[in-house]
Amino acid sequence: MNCALISVGTELLFGQITNTNTVYLSKRLNELGINVYYHFTVGDNCRRLEEILNYAMKNTDLIITTGGLGPTQDDLTRETVAKAMGKNLVLHRPSMERLESFFKDLNRSMCENNKKQAYLPEDSIVLQNNKGTAPGFIIENMGKVIISLPGPPKEMIGMFEDCVGGYLREKSKSTIYSSVLRFFGIGESSLETELLDLITKQENPTIAPYAKEGEVSLRVTAKAENENAAMKLIEPIVREIRSKVGTYLYSDQDEELVEVVAKALMEKEISISIAESCTGGLLAGRLTAVPGISKCFHAGYITYSNEAKMKMLGVGQDTLDLWGAVSEETAKEMVLRLREKTNSDLCVSITGIAGPDGGTEDKPVGLVYIGLLYKEHLTVQRIKAFGDRDRIRNYSVLSALNMIRNVIK
Amino acid sequence: MNCALISVGTELLFGQITNTNTVYLSKRLNELGINVYYHFTVGDNCRRLEEILNYAMKNTDLIITTGGLGPTQDDLTRETVAKAMGKNLVLHRPSMERLESFFKDLNRSMCENNKKQAYLPEDSIVLQNNKGTAPGFIIENMGKVIISLPGPPKEMIGMFEDCVGGYLREKSKSTIYSSVLRFFGIGESSLETELLDLITKQENPTIAPYAKEGEVSLRVTAKAENENAAMKLIEPIVREIRSKVGTYLYSDQDEELVEVVAKALMEKEISISIAESCTGGLLAGRLTAVPGISKCFHAGYITYSNEAKMKMLGVGQDTLDLWGAVSEETAKEMVLRLREKTNSDLCVSITGIAGPDGGTEDKPVGLVYIGLLYKEHLTVQRIKAFGDRDRIRNYSVLSALNMIRNVIK
Repeated sequence: MNCALISVGTELLFGQITNTNTVYLSKRLNELGINVYYHFTVGDNCRRLEEILNYAMKNTDLIITTGGLGPTQDDLTRETVAKAMGKNLVLHRPSMERLESFFKDLNRSMCENNKKQAYLPEDSIVLQNNKGTAPGFIIENMGKVIISLPGPPKEMIGMFEDCVGGYLREKSKSTIYSSVLRFFGIGESSLETELLDLITKQENPTIAPYAKEGEVSLRVTAKAENENAAMKLIEPIVREIRSKVGTYLYSDQDEELVEVVAKALMEKEISISIAESCTGGLLAGRLTAVPGISKCFHAGYITYSNEAKMKMLGVGQDTLDLWGAVSEETAKEMVLRLREKTNSDLCVSITGIAGPDGGTEDKPVGLVYIGLLYKEHLTVQRIKAFGDRDRIRNYSVLSALNMIRNVIK
Repeated sequence: MNCALISVGTELLFGQITNTNTVYLSKRLNELGINVYYHFTVGDNCRRLEEILNYAMKNTDLIITTGGLGPTQDDLTRETVAKAMGKNLVLHRPSMERLESFFKDLNRSMCENNKKQAYLPEDSIVLQNNKGTAPGFIIENMGKVIISLPGPPKEMIGMFEDCVGGYLREKSKSTIYSSVLRFFGIGESSLETELLDLITKQENPTIAPYAKEGEVSLRVTAKAENENAAMKLIEPIVREIRSKVGTYLYSDQDEELVEVVAKALMEKEISISIAESCTGGLLAGRLTAVPGISKCFHAGYITYSNEAKMKMLGVGQDTLDLWGAVSEETAKEMVLRLREKTNSDLCVSITGIAGPDGGTEDKPVGLVYIGLLYKEHLTVQRIKAFGDRDRIRNYSVLSALNMIRNVIK
């Protein structure tokens, strides 16, 4: 089964927001063995939406739209999809009642404009919205299926998981299964070169590298009757990849580096504390996004100035005067003082120059030192990051996480 | 002039990465007065790319492609675009020489696969890539323009800014100018209701609301001969909007809330320190993304446990025993102790329950207290955030920033 995703909303065409709905839906559809062939984005314009729907219906069997189901004047999806499928809009009484009691529960009067959300294409399967007001729907007609979901990501995801996933599982006839391998410390063209013979010979599974900021991923995809059969095709390929570039591999489950590290810390019950300067809280912020991390992480210091390094941690004035804030010596002293303060098994420090200002010839923008004290094992890594302030800070956080990953293995 | 954006890359259709290129290009094109009518995403597949190019060429005058210009086997844009425009690929010698010296400078041998990047459509304008290896190009033919840019965002943006912006400015005949107003503390349907008469009467300028996580924006767009004329149409509308919902308005320049706050702190030379619990460094991390913030921000404490609140800040055991970590009293004591430690003009504390675990009937997930001490003015705000862990943490950071914004006005 082939699919097209249509995101409806002029704000997308103005570049006001980033489209994360297509990311989520594409992942879920692929897990279900449905090929996604197109993403379309079109504005709140009936004619163009209708033409795109017709193009999509000519080229695919399943179309999923997001957006345009709300209460405002710009919300045009219901009528346009109904028209493309040759249906009228009719009042769906249970949806109207739900709308009315939603507003009643909040002690708010329902603005008139909300009512249009309860007029849905006749003969459609209505999908309840448990995180917002606009219901969605599924229409099957002329050998095609159109599923219309709300635009706001949390509502869309909620509706997909509650109602749509199960519906599609019935419809799908084969399984595409992907393993995504994630690497840190090697570039995309080097990775492809190391694996060139595998990539050239590929049939089923296919192998595709792609670069993200500071990282590279490899998607190994097999088509088979079911997940087990797909995995039997994928495993030997992954084994061969490991044997060639395994040093750089941090996950074969498409996890974020921070998730891998947080899980390892929690499993091994290793306590961690952090002292950050140029990353200003990003490392701790990212680690604490993982639920349950309070088992390991208790204390972080953001020592953004020299004075803060001295007053908060006890780094020596001499060290700062002699070597400067951005130095191996300062990174080292930050973790030693951090250990004295917190007694954590693992202490991490980051000090560097994020830019755009602050660089000199000796100490350019992007120079970062990462200190790590694990039990009695002390190391300091010097990295040279490229790019703008955000990229340098992000790369520093990833480098620190990778250092932790390797030392607690 | 109307435009379609085509993003080429199977990784997008698998949902492996988020498409930020369309966000950037859409913004810039609109500033140049070019209507973006479509975003298309298609995989590394010649046939489907060719068909989408043909659809786009039928419906728009300008097409911008991103992706598929790299050295790997999947990179198909050059040949497919050349074919759609009736051109052959020819060796572009200066590009080949640049590629050769790029690898020579890095003391690395050039993998064979890199050479295909120097074969470009004949008669095209070649665009140099100052941040990577793949050149881009512009082809004008049959009354249409196709511009092909690299996929990696930093390379695409660099090339657009160096070469493409100027080219398009010549081509564009009118100006679309948008003011984007950003609001915190009011929902989308309430905003539309407050401004219903303005929205119903709209012609030029148009007015479009849209929701982002925790916030709402309003795009006011005017079409005119030049920017000044467009602003003359927009200003009276913005004045009327301010008079109705100005309390919630934090920017009329489409800035992020953190940028508005950071700028205000720097302009007014207000020193700030932060003590975070459930947000774990996110507030400080976001504030320190703004260059120059070291003028105001020096010290942050991430007091993730009760013990850390006591040991690092000096919050009393009694307070924690009696009221609990997530309470008005603890938030208040956190800022008072923070002031003693840092002597900052402005001290902020955040303590709450980010979830998914940790909630009780009295203190549910999403309950967060934000303490603020500005000079001698102390307040604590109690918020009830909804959603998952990420959303609760994000909303807490935005709420804290908005409190700061209001108190230093």
